[in-house]
Amino acid sequence: MNVTVGGRSRPFRTVTFDTARNAVRLIDQRLLPHTFRIVSLGDFRQTAQAIRDMVVRGAGAIGATAAYGLAQGARAFRGRGLGRFSRHLETVYQTLKAARPTAVDPVNAMDQVLAAMQAGNTVEEQQALAAAAAEDFAHEDVRHCEEIGRHGASLIAQGMNVLTHCNAGWLAFVDVGSATAPLYAAQAQGRAFHVYCDETRPRSQGSTLTAWELAQQQISHQIIADNAAGHLMQRGQIDLVIVGSDRTLGRTGEVANKIGTYTKAVLARRHRLPFYVAIPLSTIDWTLKSGFDIPIEQRHESEVLGAWGVLENPRPEAGRLNSKVETRRSEARRRTRRRVYVRVGNPGSPALNPGFDVTPPELITGIITPLGIFPPGDLWASRRRLGCPA
Amino acid sequence: MNVTVGGRSRPFRTVTFDTARNAVRLIDQRLLPHTFRIVSLGDFRQTAQAIRDMVVRGAGAIGATAAYGLAQGARAFRGRGLGRFSRHLETVYQTLKAARPTAVDPVNAMDQVLAAMQAGNTVEEQQALAAAAAEDFAHEDVRHCEEIGRHGASLIAQGMNVLTHCNAGWLAFVDVGSATAPLYAAQAQGRAFHVYCDETRPRSQGSTLTAWELAQQQISHQIIADNAAGHLMQRGQIDLVIVGSDRTLGRTGEVANKIGTYTKAVLARRHRLPFYVAIPLSTIDWTLKSGFDIPIEQRHESEVLGAWGVLENPRPEAGRLNSKVETRRSEARRRTRRRVYVRVGNPGSPALNPGFDVTPPELITGIITPLGIFPPGDLWASRRRLGCPA
Repeated sequence: MNVTVGGRSRPFRTVTFDTARNAVRLIDQRLLPHTFRIVSLGDFRQTAQAIRDMVVRGAGAIGATAAYGLAQGARAFRGRGLGRFSRHLETVYQTLKAARPTAVDPVNAMDQVLAAMQAGNTVEEQQALAAAAAEDFAHEDVRHCEEIGRHGASLIAQGMNVLTHCNAGWLAFVDVGSATAPLYAAQAQGRAFHVYCDETRPRSQGSTLTAWELAQQQISHQIIADNAAGHLMQRGQIDLVIVGSDRTLGRTGEVANKIGTYTKAVLARRHRLPFYVAIPLSTIDWTLKSGFDIPIEQRHESEVLGAWGVLENPRPEAGRLNSKVETRRSEARRRTRRRVYVRVGNPGSPALNPGFDVTPPELITGIITPLGIFPPGDLWASRRRLGCPA
Repeated sequence: MNVTVGGRSRPFRTVTFDTARNAVRLIDQRLLPHTFRIVSLGDFRQTAQAIRDMVVRGAGAIGATAAYGLAQGARAFRGRGLGRFSRHLETVYQTLKAARPTAVDPVNAMDQVLAAMQAGNTVEEQQALAAAAAEDFAHEDVRHCEEIGRHGASLIAQGMNVLTHCNAGWLAFVDVGSATAPLYAAQAQGRAFHVYCDETRPRSQGSTLTAWELAQQQISHQIIADNAAGHLMQRGQIDLVIVGSDRTLGRTGEVANKIGTYTKAVLARRHRLPFYVAIPLSTIDWTLKSGFDIPIEQRHESEVLGAWGVLENPRPEAGRLNSKVETRRSEARRRTRRRVYVRVGNPGSPALNPGFDVTPPELITGIITPLGIFPPGDLWASRRRLGCPA
C-alpha cells in the first residue's frame, strides 16, 4: 500500500526481497507510527533476528519473511555439492524457525519453498527455485488478501461508519491485509466511508498501526478508546464491524482474536449490527473441537500497567498541529524520537493480561475468506473447498 | 481510609479542615498513584485554585472542599459589620464556584453552609457556624457512603470476583466512596474477595486511583485492560459488577457514568451477572426525561492519543519487584518522579473522545443508595423518600 515519504506517496510492501543484494527488506514496525524506516538484512541470521525482535509481526508477514530468509540463506551458499548444500539449508531452516518458535506460518512457508526446490538438480538450480518459490509465497499472500477485499468490499456502502479492532492490516501481511482489505477495495471502488479504530489496549495496535495505515491511504478515520465503541453503537454511529482472526475453528466457527474482539461482537449483537471476521485460509484450525481448548496466552503485566510512546507535550489547548510549517518541523523532530515506556498504573498492583479471546459463531455474521463469505457455521461443510487436509 | 506512609498504615480523608491553621488539607490526586502528598491550603483562593487544578476531583470531594473553602474564607474575615462580611462572603462564594463552573456539588455544599450561618447574629457567630456546617457537610458525605456500604456489603459473598470501572472510590468523596463502599464494608465484615479494576482508558482512573485505593486497603485485586472483562466473564471469572454514576435519572433509572460503563453492563447481561450502580442521593437528576438528553462531554483527543505516567524500564523479564530492599529503593526514586505525557497513537490521526455513556435501566440490577437498594425503575415511585424536590 502507499506510504508518504518526503511528501510523496509511494507504494511499499511489508516484506520484499532484493535479489541483486540478496537482502530481505522489512518495514521496521517497532518504530511505527512515529518513524517509517526500511531495514535491509543482508544475511539470513539477521533476518531471523528481525523476526525475533518483532521488526516484523503478523502471520502473513512473518511467513513471507521466513520464506525470503530461506531463499536468502540458500543463495548465500558458496560451497559445492548438494549434500553440503542440504546441511547448510538445515541450519538456515532451524535458525529461522527458532526465531518465533510458536508460530506456524514461518514453518509452512519454508516447507513450501523447500518442496519447490526439489525440482532442481544442482545447487544453482535449487537456489534459483528457492528465490522463485519465496516470491510465489509472497505473491500468493497478497493475492489472497486481494480476494478477501474483493468479497468484503460489497459490505461497505457509501457513507458507512466501520469499526475495526487491533491491526489485521497490510503490515500484518505482505500487503493489503485481511480486516483492512475490504476497506482498501471499497476505497478503490470510489466509495467514501469512515473508520473507527479501537485503540486496542494494552498494546495499542489500533491507535498505532491501523491508524497509521489508514492515514497513509487517506481513509477518513478516528481513534477511539476501547471503552467508546458501545456508546457510539448506541447513538447509531457505527454500521459495521470488521476484525481479523489469529485462529478460526473450522469445526465450530469460533474465532480467536485480540482481546476485546468478543466484547465488540457482544455489543454488535445488542445493536443488531453486522460483525464480520476477515481471514486468510491459513488461519483456519481444522483440528480443535472447542474454543475453550484454544490456549489463551497470558502476556506480561507490564503491558497493562503502562504504555509505550514518544515524549511530547499534549497541547491540550492548541489541539493538533494546524500549520504546514509546524507539521514539517515536528516531523523533523519525530525522526529522532525514541519510544519510551511509562508506568501508568499503581506501583505494586498486579495486572492480569489475557492476550486473546474467543468469539462464538452465533455472534458472527460472516467469515470473509479469499474464496467468499461464509456463515461461521458453514465452514465445516465447505471444508474441502477451504483446504481442510483430508 | 488507610494509607501506608513510611511503612505505617494510617487513616486519611480526601479532604479535611485544620481549624487551628484555618487550612484546607487535600490529598494531591494529580500525583497519585506514584506519590502520596497532602497539600495544605491556607487561603480560600488557594483552595479554589486546587479545585480548578484537579488536585481534588469527584462530586463529594469537591463539594466538601468548597464547603470548607467557604468556611475558611469566612473565618479569615478580619473586618467589622455583617454588611462587609456578607460582601466578603460573596467574593469567596463566587471564587470557589468559578473554580469548577459546571459542577453542581460545590454550589449545593456552599448553599448548605450559607443557610446554616443565618442562625448567627454576629460575624463571630456566623464564622463559627460556617466551620461547623462545613464539618457537618463532610460528615454527612461520609455517613452516606457508609450507608451505601452497609446496604451493598450483603451483595459480596466470600470468595467472589467483583469487577469495577473507573474510580468511584473514597478519593472521589470525603471518605469510603460509593462503588467501593460495599467492598470496604464486606472487608470489614471479614469476607475475602477479589476485585478486577478496569484500567478505564483514556484517563486510567481504574489502574491509577482505584488500584491504589485497594492496594492501601490490602484488598486482593488485579488491573485489567478494558478489553479483558468480556473474556473473564465468559470464563466464569467475574461474579458481580459495581460501578458509580455521575448522574442517574430519577424518572427513568438511566445511569450516566464514565465511558465504558455501558459496555460492561451489556456484557454482564449476556452473562447473566448482577450489575449494580452505587450512588449518593445528590447525583440523582429528577428533571431530565431521557438519557438521550444528557449532554455527553467530548473531551480532548490528547487523552486518547497518549498516556500520562512515570518513566520506567518495563522489566519484562524480571516481572515485578520482589525484594524489600528493591521496593524501598524504588519508593525513594518514585518520590521524585514526575509524570510525563507520551504520545502513543499515530501522529496526524484524529481521535474521538466521549467522556461518558448512558446505561439503560433494563441492564441494571439495582441502584445502591444510602437508603437501600432500588431497582432502577423504582426510583421515581420512591422519589419523596429519595429527596426529590416537590
